[in-house]
Amino acid sequence: MSETQVLASYIVSSRWEDIPDDVRHEAKRALINYVGCAIGGSPHEAVTTAIRALGPFSGPRTASVLGRVERLDPLHASLMNGISSHVEDYDDTTPKNYSHTSSPVASALFGFASANRVRGRDFVGAFVLGFEAASRVGNAVYPAHYDVGWHMTGTIGVFGAAAGVGRLIGLSPRQMVWALGLAATQSAGLREMFGSMGKAFHPGRSAQNGYAAALLAQAEFTAGERGIEGPRGFAHVMAAARDLSKITTRLGVDFDLRENTYKPFPCGIVNHPTIDGCIQIHDEDRPDPDSIVAVRLRVAPLVIDLCNQQNITRGLQGKFSVYHGAAVGLVRGKGGLREYTDEAVNDPQIKRVREATTAVGDPSVSEDQSRIEVELTGGRRLTRFVEQSLGNIHRPLSDRQLEDKFRDQAVLVLPARDVEALIERCWRIDELDDVGELVTATVPSAQRAATQSAS
Amino acid sequence: MSETQVLASYIVSSRWEDIPDDVRHEAKRALINYVGCAIGGSPHEAVTTAIRALGPFSGPRTASVLGRVERLDPLHASLMNGISSHVEDYDDTTPKNYSHTSSPVASALFGFASANRVRGRDFVGAFVLGFEAASRVGNAVYPAHYDVGWHMTGTIGVFGAAAGVGRLIGLSPRQMVWALGLAATQSAGLREMFGSMGKAFHPGRSAQNGYAAALLAQAEFTAGERGIEGPRGFAHVMAAARDLSKITTRLGVDFDLRENTYKPFPCGIVNHPTIDGCIQIHDEDRPDPDSIVAVRLRVAPLVIDLCNQQNITRGLQGKFSVYHGAAVGLVRGKGGLREYTDEAVNDPQIKRVREATTAVGDPSVSEDQSRIEVELTGGRRLTRFVEQSLGNIHRPLSDRQLEDKFRDQAVLVLPARDVEALIERCWRIDELDDVGELVTATVPSAQRAATQSAS
Repeated sequence: MSETQVLASYIVSSRWEDIPDDVRHEAKRALINYVGCAIGGSPHEAVTTAIRALGPFSGPRTASVLGRVERLDPLHASLMNGISSHVEDYDDTTPKNYSHTSSPVASALFGFASANRVRGRDFVGAFVLGFEAASRVGNAVYPAHYDVGWHMTGTIGVFGAAAGVGRLIGLSPRQMVWALGLAATQSAGLREMFGSMGKAFHPGRSAQNGYAAALLAQAEFTAGERGIEGPRGFAHVMAAARDLSKITTRLGVDFDLRENTYKPFPCGIVNHPTIDGCIQIHDEDRPDPDSIVAVRLRVAPLVIDLCNQQNITRGLQGKFSVYHGAAVGLVRGKGGLREYTDEAVNDPQIKRVREATTAVGDPSVSEDQSRIEVELTGGRRLTRFVEQSLGNIHRPLSDRQLEDKFRDQAVLVLPARDVEALIERCWRIDELDDVGELVTATVPSAQRAATQSAS
Repeated sequence: MSETQVLASYIVSSRWEDIPDDVRHEAKRALINYVGCAIGGSPHEAVTTAIRALGPFSGPRTASVLGRVERLDPLHASLMNGISSHVEDYDDTTPKNYSHTSSPVASALFGFASANRVRGRDFVGAFVLGFEAASRVGNAVYPAHYDVGWHMTGTIGVFGAAAGVGRLIGLSPRQMVWALGLAATQSAGLREMFGSMGKAFHPGRSAQNGYAAALLAQAEFTAGERGIEGPRGFAHVMAAARDLSKITTRLGVDFDLRENTYKPFPCGIVNHPTIDGCIQIHDEDRPDPDSIVAVRLRVAPLVIDLCNQQNITRGLQGKFSVYHGAAVGLVRGKGGLREYTDEAVNDPQIKRVREATTAVGDPSVSEDQSRIEVELTGGRRLTRFVEQSLGNIHRPLSDRQLEDKFRDQAVLVLPARDVEALIERCWRIDELDDVGELVTATVPSAQRAATQSAS
């Protein structure tokens, strides 16, 4: 059987019982991380703009967008979920292929489940299968595919959305082959969009297009049956080198979800060890921010290449400033969304510490590491060496840290007590009778939304 | 200025007066050909299936699909127009890049104009600009881009749809740059879909996605500003070799529309010289079909590779049978849509002549040529050598032949008298106050449609 057929057959026939407990738990961790990011990104102007442009073309408004009051048809809701969950660059990463796979897959599934009754266990199962389909297709073409300029979150996400939604609507194996083919032929997304709203558009469009692929296949809209591996299919056309065996080897035994990672900070990942170390100093040594005379960093040379922004005034610039990362860690002991607002960047205390920070690129320091020295008035020195950055595969965020990350984002949109109830509901998503109730719980009340937009 | 900027600036600022008369006329020829194909393809099950799958997700139903009674939002109407106009493989071809450019561009424009008042001259102007944008982007990456496996009608069509609709909604130059960027990052479509409905899905999705790109850009949804030429943009990522100067050289002076060609027969283009020659024999020598003892063809070897199907029972197979092409030419003196139905393939007289036909690949015969010998009872022989196939750039279909082609397709859906009025309206599309009236004139009455679907 061809790779497309093997994958389709697996997606259609895998049972909940076949998914190991640890994978189920990691799926829930990925979903909690995803929902937090979707809520946290939901007020972003990229989402508002997309709704303004395309909302008038919505079909019957049977679905909610996570974190927003507007209702849309489920395909458009999937698009908006994908934009919001990726727009802060805060979603998950699978280091095997450096894709952010949950966003396109879960965005489609939540769009679907908002408008159609889906049991939690079916939902989590479909997420595991969709994630695995997308990630394995990505493994088969990584790194050549990424290196040439494809944004894999877009290009592989569409397979995962088609697989996940196709599973929920009960496609036959043959229909699933078509759905994967229609996903392949919609695979798109260029890295040239980085730095614009176009980047977050990718997982959104992938979610929407994969979902549509599943609907078309269900209606018997035919596609080429070798969409992934055929001589004019995805892998050959979109990657100069490929290993198709990565799609099928140990399918149903190995799960890429096991290697999924979650960002502790919403900024370039190379800043993470510095922020991490500075938060450690804040929490353990408790220096008075006003006593900080100088901060000296030794970091991987790539950090200087990518994150050397110094005289900054906007939150977005802060994401590309290792100095800002050090300052928020030391001053606030945090590096959440609120540390990357225009307000935070212009906070006088943060600004002062940022401007007292210098960095040297040191080839002996890896991209997961940072060597930090803080000099206080009177000459006292505090130092830290971070050997493995928080959030990487060797130091994963704990369930509690994921909850903190969720809370930090969700409180931007929801009252604190609703956030706690939502966290609790996310952890037992596999037990819900109807995942739609979880979606509804992310929607701010219309009254509150009106107050927020007026403020 | 970058290529994207030059192109955007041209699309935004070009005036109707800047489009030469011969280009305007060729645009009308392309549009007549397009509308005929869209109507002729509109009853196809690919269109019916897509409407069944995605119609329930339509927004406010302010637009008509060419040739269909269903109304949809204009984005979905664009999708369906794209499928119908390409599904019979009967639309136009630009030999410079072997793309079928009118389908994605005109599909979006008719979708838009069905729901929004557009003057005919603005419509034709936008079509010329959209066609040119798509075709020039195609020229820049052809042939490497096609050879690796991209279906260019999909991958470049999205640029043309974005440019054309963007022009009609009055994007600023900066917004047009974003629209082209959002087109680039949605560029997709694999040749692996050939032989399935997925092929016709490409121009449809390109029309819909390019239209959406224009709407997003208008709302200030940002994109990378070097979507075409950037190091991670369309041309570098999607073609191993490229010549970006083809996008900007003599822009506004040379028009690819001048080199556009129209298929006389709805089948693989390598069969065309044989069908053409057999129709000549039918018309000029008038042999009684029952008197045909043998038909001997000498054709380009590629014809034997691609169109060697012999024991056939279905219309679709007939498109890939040079024997069937010879038979319908000799028996019916025609090679229209009705010669590629299941009925025609199983017509006893056509079947007999088809089975009496043999073909030899001959490297001295070009793909535009065919050498035909018909042996009649009693030993009389009729011969033809077709040196240039009808419909190619050296023997273009005349305006009258385009009308015949239109008529042949439109009568499948509309009463003959309505067809004549529609042809007349198409020729003066640039004088219409509202192109929507032309779209409406392609829609069969609901009563007639009900009768048809019941029959």
